[in-house]
Amino acid sequence: MNEAFMSDNTAPVDFRILRVLEEANTGFEKPYGYDKWTNEAKLLIRSEFGADAEFYPVMNGTGANVISLASVLSPFQAVICAESAHINVDECGAPERFLGSKLISVRTELGKLAPEDITPLLHSEGFEHHVQPYVISISQVTETGLAYSPQEVSALSKFASEHNLLLHIDGSRLANAAVHLGCSMGEAVKGADLVSFGGTKNGMLMGEAVLLLNPEIGQNIKYYRKQGMQLFSKMRYLSAQFIPYLRDGIWRENAVQANSMAAKLASGFVKAGLKLAYPVNSNGVFVYLPDSLISKIERNFGFYVWDEETGLCRFMCSFATTEQDVNSLLNLV
Amino acid sequence: MNEAFMSDNTAPVDFRILRVLEEANTGFEKPYGYDKWTNEAKLLIRSEFGADAEFYPVMNGTGANVISLASVLSPFQAVICAESAHINVDECGAPERFLGSKLISVRTELGKLAPEDITPLLHSEGFEHHVQPYVISISQVTETGLAYSPQEVSALSKFASEHNLLLHIDGSRLANAAVHLGCSMGEAVKGADLVSFGGTKNGMLMGEAVLLLNPEIGQNIKYYRKQGMQLFSKMRYLSAQFIPYLRDGIWRENAVQANSMAAKLASGFVKAGLKLAYPVNSNGVFVYLPDSLISKIERNFGFYVWDEETGLCRFMCSFATTEQDVNSLLNLV
Amino acid sequence: MNEAFMSDNTAPVDFRILRVLEEANTGFEKPYGYDKWTNEAKLLIRSEFGADAEFYPVMNGTGANVISLASVLSPFQAVICAESAHINVDECGAPERFLGSKLISVRTELGKLAPEDITPLLHSEGFEHHVQPYVISISQVTETGLAYSPQEVSALSKFASEHNLLLHIDGSRLANAAVHLGCSMGEAVKGADLVSFGGTKNGMLMGEAVLLLNPEIGQNIKYYRKQGMQLFSKMRYLSAQFIPYLRDGIWRENAVQANSMAAKLASGFVKAGLKLAYPVNSNGVFVYLPDSLISKIERNFGFYVWDEETGLCRFMCSFATTEQDVNSLLNLV
Amino acid sequence: MNEAFMSDNTAPVDFRILRVLEEANTGFEKPYGYDKWTNEAKLLIRSEFGADAEFYPVMNGTGANVISLASVLSPFQAVICAESAHINVDECGAPERFLGSKLISVRTELGKLAPEDITPLLHSEGFEHHVQPYVISISQVTETGLAYSPQEVSALSKFASEHNLLLHIDGSRLANAAVHLGCSMGEAVKGADLVSFGGTKNGMLMGEAVLLLNPEIGQNIKYYRKQGMQLFSKMRYLSAQFIPYLRDGIWRENAVQANSMAAKLASGFVKAGLKLAYPVNSNGVFVYLPDSLISKIERNFGFYVWDEETGLCRFMCSFATTEQDVNSLLNLV
Repeated sequence: MNEAFMSDNTAPVDFRILRVLEEANTGFEKPYGYDKWTNEAKLLIRSEFGADAEFYPVMNGTGANVISLASVLSPFQAVICAESAHINVDECGAPERFLGSKLISVRTELGKLAPEDITPLLHSEGFEHHVQPYVISISQVTETGLAYSPQEVSALSKFASEHNLLLHIDGSRLANAAVHLGCSMGEAVKGADLVSFGGTKNGMLMGEAVLLLNPEIGQNIKYYRKQGMQLFSKMRYLSAQFIPYLRDGIWRENAVQANSMAAKLASGFVKAGLKLAYPVNSNGVFVYLPDSLISKIERNFGFYVWDEETGLCRFMCSFATTEQDVNSLLNLV
Repeated sequence: MNEAFMSDNTAPVDFRILRVLEEANTGFEKPYGYDKWTNEAKLLIRSEFGADAEFYPVMNGTGANVISLASVLSPFQAVICAESAHINVDECGAPERFLGSKLISVRTELGKLAPEDITPLLHSEGFEHHVQPYVISISQVTETGLAYSPQEVSALSKFASEHNLLLHIDGSRLANAAVHLGCSMGEAVKGADLVSFGGTKNGMLMGEAVLLLNPEIGQNIKYYRKQGMQLFSKMRYLSAQFIPYLRDGIWRENAVQANSMAAKLASGFVKAGLKLAYPVNSNGVFVYLPDSLISKIERNFGFYVWDEETGLCRFMCSFATTEQDVNSLLNLV
Repeated sequence: MNEAFMSDNTAPVDFRILRVLEEANTGFEKPYGYDKWTNEAKLLIRSEFGADAEFYPVMNGTGANVISLASVLSPFQAVICAESAHINVDECGAPERFLGSKLISVRTELGKLAPEDITPLLHSEGFEHHVQPYVISISQVTETGLAYSPQEVSALSKFASEHNLLLHIDGSRLANAAVHLGCSMGEAVKGADLVSFGGTKNGMLMGEAVLLLNPEIGQNIKYYRKQGMQLFSKMRYLSAQFIPYLRDGIWRENAVQANSMAAKLASGFVKAGLKLAYPVNSNGVFVYLPDSLISKIERNFGFYVWDEETGLCRFMCSFATTEQDVNSLLNLV
Repeated sequence: MNEAFMSDNTAPVDFRILRVLEEANTGFEKPYGYDKWTNEAKLLIRSEFGADAEFYPVMNGTGANVISLASVLSPFQAVICAESAHINVDECGAPERFLGSKLISVRTELGKLAPEDITPLLHSEGFEHHVQPYVISISQVTETGLAYSPQEVSALSKFASEHNLLLHIDGSRLANAAVHLGCSMGEAVKGADLVSFGGTKNGMLMGEAVLLLNPEIGQNIKYYRKQGMQLFSKMRYLSAQFIPYLRDGIWRENAVQANSMAAKLASGFVKAGLKLAYPVNSNGVFVYLPDSLISKIERNFGFYVWDEETGLCRFMCSFATTEQDVNSLLNLV
């Protein structure tokens, strides 16, 4: 069974990331982030995301999202997100459990949010019977694999600040977005107040962090990271991974590979007369397959049937997906 | 500054643990624990802790404790623990936040619990105004560095089952306990219903897990692990660490080193006329130091002043602490 | 300003309900429900809702809903409800805060749920990344004022039990539903596992309760009622209100009045050429009004503009709304 | 069975309080506190507690305590309270469940707190592994029936503000304290930042409220009251009770009766050679009784055996306890 398309979590760790663990593996070091690797990683983050960026490494993507939100949200305040958002459907209710807050989900055609989707949800400001929206959370790229352009992010950012809201970006596939957009990761989230930085899906072993870009928020995040079970004791091994990932451009190189494999796969699907559900902006391909083809592919490749009724299927490429993987999948089609 | 005594988290990772990460770093693999390394680790866990043991790797010690408790506790039910327990003082209120449950803490002279400490807390069974105790949580070894003998654990286990309670053991230093007791780790927790297994303080990179030893509990733990932000995507790299740790006796070898360094240090303190606060059963030494000596040591070594009034100080050894570290500390005394 | 249409909470208390408070106001009595009035009320509840019904008076409607759900739900389990449900929009996130659970809301044309709306939400049973639906919650009548027929409730009940789900009914306007359906309140919820009984909107001072109709659920509800801040100390004064309300048919008499005033009002709106948004099954009238008429009515009557864009307005009648109130409102139209 | 001593919740409602319900029972009125009775009650509260006092009626004492704390506390912050505090032992864990915060309980000889009890708990400010104390909560009177003198409250208030803490007072028996201290209720809590006002134990039907005395705190309390299931729809009937209670001195008159009955009872116990556990400052009497006497009294009177080992018993008087009740109890002794 070839798992090159099941998820970008099936990929191994980039060997350059593993190597840095060995480099960090010398002598005693203060735990919990008071070490030189964490400090060096912070400087690289600031170089990418701005001089004000605060860097709080955490243990996984759900943790990054929940601790981000916990650092700014009171329980009567709500998060507005797309119905398909990872926080809404793929975290087993972690946000509701930890935050005690409501997520207000919005269904849109492509899984992206725009200011006009949010306006109707703001009608009850100050009305104590209703939760009070405080954070707009989008994913860059979305669960449907679409990137927000800098203009789209900027419009949401402007809208948020005009309405006393904050903009959170779930960046679990941020590198893939930046590569698609042809910009830096920092540019791909410019305007956000806080970001869930994700590197695990793009070659890191464990490379998640909360980034606070707005210097006026999240003063108590260190307590929430600990209370939220996301503080790693031997932090140097987590932080050290960010160093080559950012410094050496591993993020870009790996995302280029993942995105281009997805583009190639999508192109093959289209040539075979199959219909894509969404434009392919990043490393995921959503395509409608007939049942017979699903059965055939299932015997050889791992992938998700996203909707059994319509035959919508997801194929996710990673930095480790090769042309050969793509070709052997396309040969079945 | 020598950090060999500040915490067992200051130590690096045992090189044999890092090596197994590389061995696991080949090809695609199913995420979230559906991989061969997790399966192999589970078999080794069962060989150590019994054929019924269920193995749920998590991301850190707070996670192991909270997810353990979440898997069995309803919010009106309480946990009885020592006042000094890690869950009570060192997790920034993570149990209360995630569980919504009360911890009922008991102050005892040495930080250990016995049935007679618990009996007075059980007087209000069925009274809806009071939380209902359901779990006794002890630490093996305690925060004061003391091991429970198998007889003591067994007495608590018997007491628990007679009172419809469960026994949880926080085993963040379980290997150190087992070495002191001269038994296996499984024997050191025999009678417990559920265990927080800890390996990170003893040479692993990230080596925590919930072990369910009682086959009748915790059926929904997989949801709580996910909802509790403790499910690691690239699980093979977490699970793989357990393999050499258990199979090759790394746990014992490393704990022997840590415990013996603590014994040597304690012996040196006593010879210097200093008073120990607790018998030294494991890798921590608690000693009363005069202010002048505290100041002198602080210039060269990291350690914790546990109580400023009495001068109680904690020196924690790890597998990486050497005779030379101990000698140079004792030279100051 | 005439507040006869703003809400059914603007009405006073039926004088027969206040009178029973005085009757209960003699001598000492055990608190917290261990009194004779609570017992008598329980027998009347059982006579209406079945011999197995358990009766837990609580303090308000939000409390009834949240404690109902808390008594059966684990935090990884979800509630499926209509998007317009009171628990989803009018309780300031109390369910999420107290339960830690997700509400999965479904948008339907009329605000009612049917089995076919729920089926698509059940696709991920056993998948730890997704919350697991466990309760279907409907409102009888809905926030849109519609009653479920006994056949509709029965279909949901059957569907629920076939899928290992429970059926909860928010009955804050249960009497109005029963009057519309021409049945008893018990018949109007037949098939439900648990019910939020509401009497406050229909003439009681404070007349809410959790009813457990399924004898196999909710064993720990007494703890959740207390932990949920819903246990009233001087319970006799709460329970006593249920006695005349149920025994003397106050529930029916008052709901008949409220429903008939709504019918009269709706009829007048239609005669004036205005368009109703929903059929009028109970005591609420939803009508589209032009802006000029909204302004005119606002000068004399309290009511809610439900949707500013479409001019949808809600007029809610109660047992205290009179023909004269209706006529003077219709005179403006 | 005479229940005059079981609890102050066994008493009926003062008839003057019930009477005001009827006075309020006319016509339509805005719900949720936007009514004239709530406004009038607020003015009376301000006259008693200061011009800055904010008045938020709630539904019961647990609600008053939890919503008070919720209005100021973040989940990583802790409450310091006496081990015997109502929030710590008698609310089935409601604070932990709703707040997600830890209560740090302090055992003191008499159940009162002083600054020197709190100082040792403040050593880890800024240390992310420990919860951060933010509120000192005391009860006026304590669960042991003792009043804090204005000097004692003031000392705690001063200590709190010097350490960036807030002072919360659980005033479920505030009238009894004020009568003992010979001052107004406002004087009995002078220096507190927020108060749980309690009138239910002293003749009201339902007379609890959160009072915010410090104008800089609790800006979002209205949301927490709703989210905490403590917002009463027909608020006029709750608020109206405060009017005669405050305006007509019912609070004082009733507390004088309750306290004097307790004093008389205590005096009788002492004359009979029995030992009191605490000085009698209010309406509760704590006395050590031999087993034979416990058995004898139990056949005729409701009361609580507080500690079976020592024979410590609690007899609680209320405004409805009469000399005859006291005499017939003392006749048994």
